Amino acid sequence: MRIGDQHYRTVWMEGGVVRMIDQTLLPHRFAIMDLPDYQAVANAIRTMIVRGAPAIGATGAYGLALATLAASGDDWRGQVEQAARDLAATRPTAYDLFFNLDRVLEAVRQAPDLDAARAAAVASAQALADAGAAACERIGENGAPFIRDGARILTHCNAGWLATVDWGTALAPLYKAARAGRKFFVFADETRPRCQGASLTAYELAGEGIEHAIIADNAAGFFMAHSQIDLVIVGTDRVAANGDVANKIGTYEKAVLARRHGIPFYVAAPVSTIDFRCPSGDDIPIEERSPEEVLTVWGKDVEDGTLRRVRIAPESSTARNPAFDVTPATLVTAFITEKGIIQPRDLAQSEGFLKS
Amino acid sequence: MRIGDQHYRTVWMEGGVVRMIDQTLLPHRFAIMDLPDYQAVANAIRTMIVRGAPAIGATGAYGLALATLAASGDDWRGQVEQAARDLAATRPTAYDLFFNLDRVLEAVRQAPDLDAARAAAVASAQALADAGAAACERIGENGAPFIRDGARILTHCNAGWLATVDWGTALAPLYKAARAGRKFFVFADETRPRCQGASLTAYELAGEGIEHAIIADNAAGFFMAHSQIDLVIVGTDRVAANGDVANKIGTYEKAVLARRHGIPFYVAAPVSTIDFRCPSGDDIPIEERSPEEVLTVWGKDVEDGTLRRVRIAPESSTARNPAFDVTPATLVTAFITEKGIIQPRDLAQSEGFLKS
Repeated sequence: MRIGDQHYRTVWMEGGVVRMIDQTLLPHRFAIMDLPDYQAVANAIRTMIVRGAPAIGATGAYGLALATLAASGDDWRGQVEQAARDLAATRPTAYDLFFNLDRVLEAVRQAPDLDAARAAAVASAQALADAGAAACERIGENGAPFIRDGARILTHCNAGWLATVDWGTALAPLYKAARAGRKFFVFADETRPRCQGASLTAYELAGEGIEHAIIADNAAGFFMAHSQIDLVIVGTDRVAANGDVANKIGTYEKAVLARRHGIPFYVAAPVSTIDFRCPSGDDIPIEERSPEEVLTVWGKDVEDGTLRRVRIAPESSTARNPAFDVTPATLVTAFITEKGIIQPRDLAQSEGFLKS
Repeated sequence: MRIGDQHYRTVWMEGGVVRMIDQTLLPHRFAIMDLPDYQAVANAIRTMIVRGAPAIGATGAYGLALATLAASGDDWRGQVEQAARDLAATRPTAYDLFFNLDRVLEAVRQAPDLDAARAAAVASAQALADAGAAACERIGENGAPFIRDGARILTHCNAGWLATVDWGTALAPLYKAARAGRKFFVFADETRPRCQGASLTAYELAGEGIEHAIIADNAAGFFMAHSQIDLVIVGTDRVAANGDVANKIGTYEKAVLARRHGIPFYVAAPVSTIDFRCPSGDDIPIEERSPEEVLTVWGKDVEDGTLRRVRIAPESSTARNPAFDVTPATLVTAFITEKGIIQPRDLAQSEGFLKS
């Protein structure tokens, strides 16, 4: 999508190197990072230089392609398998990552020799990235009818193009609606502790010229109670077979509030995010991240423009930091997928259709 | 309450000067500020050097006492009345402020001359501060039975002693329970945008040696869903006659979640915070504060220890910043007051008893 006048994807492969936008510097600095090997890719996922389940999925696939290019000797298959395990271990909640690694691994396993495996891994990773971008664009087309002229939309965290290869999930319908000429207003939850809403979602919306305001996560209920929000649309890291949704911490709070106020709550996701082997939200492991994310905030000094991390808490206090929560299927109005709109109760029976 | 080994009140009067803890520097620096005249007091309220409805109320009363000490000439009564209007205009939501200003003004009006008015204003302000501290201590005694051994308690914003003259409202029962030897755990909502939970509540709890963790405002629903919160206790800026509660933005979200999970939701408040002339929450004006509070965060640089404000959002984005929300009475389990525990439905009929 647009940064200034140029079109970017979040992550891509170029001359045997994986390149990505360094999301840890946004919205204050725009920089491209080069990752020469799969260990660097794993580290980029772990340190959230790239984040968002579909973007992590594509990145992991590219990483495994790099590992296959670098594999050598009699044990090359073992090296690729090990790389896949290392890459899978970077983020426990990201189902797209496992899905994409399996696809590349499958291509490698079917290759008769290392040369063929290298070509197959690169082709598979590229095809997954392209398919991911195309799926998101279709999510945008399928979801755009919900974004009516004059609509006031709440979104949480960043499920925009920066969280995917391109277009985004939750924000894709907004981009499609905006390009169709519709005017609407977006409330972007700040999304503490990492502030992806205040930084990345706002950055994307500004880039696409969409009117918006950042709000404290605390304020969503206020605006709902004052009838100033018409719908909520979020992304997801993993959907269980029963329709339970794991997503950024705070999503559950917004879903409960939306239900209280009769506001539709949409979850936009590529089919690859639906884990039909996972029966319910109770079976989704929830990552607890470093307390430092809660105790500190990163940003640009308002006086001198330097990028700094400031501590908001006393030195003697600590924090708890669950990174995700689970929104039960009963609070989800509908899933917006590249295959169409699915009701949560129809999800399990739709596996065949969705995977076709 | 305790800072190190010493006991402090939030605000006091000493030798014709109002002194207060500068809360804008906490938790990183402890400093006392001297306010020589009522304009300085008004400014301290406006800029939130003092905050919390009961502390603002006491500060306003002291400010009006300063104005009375400074009044002179034939128009001294007019000057005091004007000072009362100026002080009342500093924070539109703080009912305690209006209540206390009315009391001091009443004492001034009944005084036959300026000398008597000066003495009466100072005595009235001092009596209000003492009564405020005593009321909070009784709130602590009345609420302490709810804080059982092993309890896990969620609180929002800072309704501790720093928000009052002493003891606090929501935190007073915790302090009384801790001094009675009970062990419990407190989840302190960070409370964006001003982070009073992460800074002030955590600072107070650390000072009193109470085990706690700061959480992102987004995480309260997660911990409730995982049965890790036994009760919620908050303060309030104004209670309407029907039991609707205006409090820091985000309180409403926590109340809705608590109800969903069957968790008791207590509101601790001195009777002076109950506005029997205000029929319902719809009649409480809600202050919308500067977008900069949402767009930026203040804290201590983790590298060099300087105090800095950092911007988390793109330069081109703005914010909406309602400072309070209204929690309907139906979501309140009970009010903890210095006069006892009151059910929301009994509030209106309790006016006589509560004011006795």
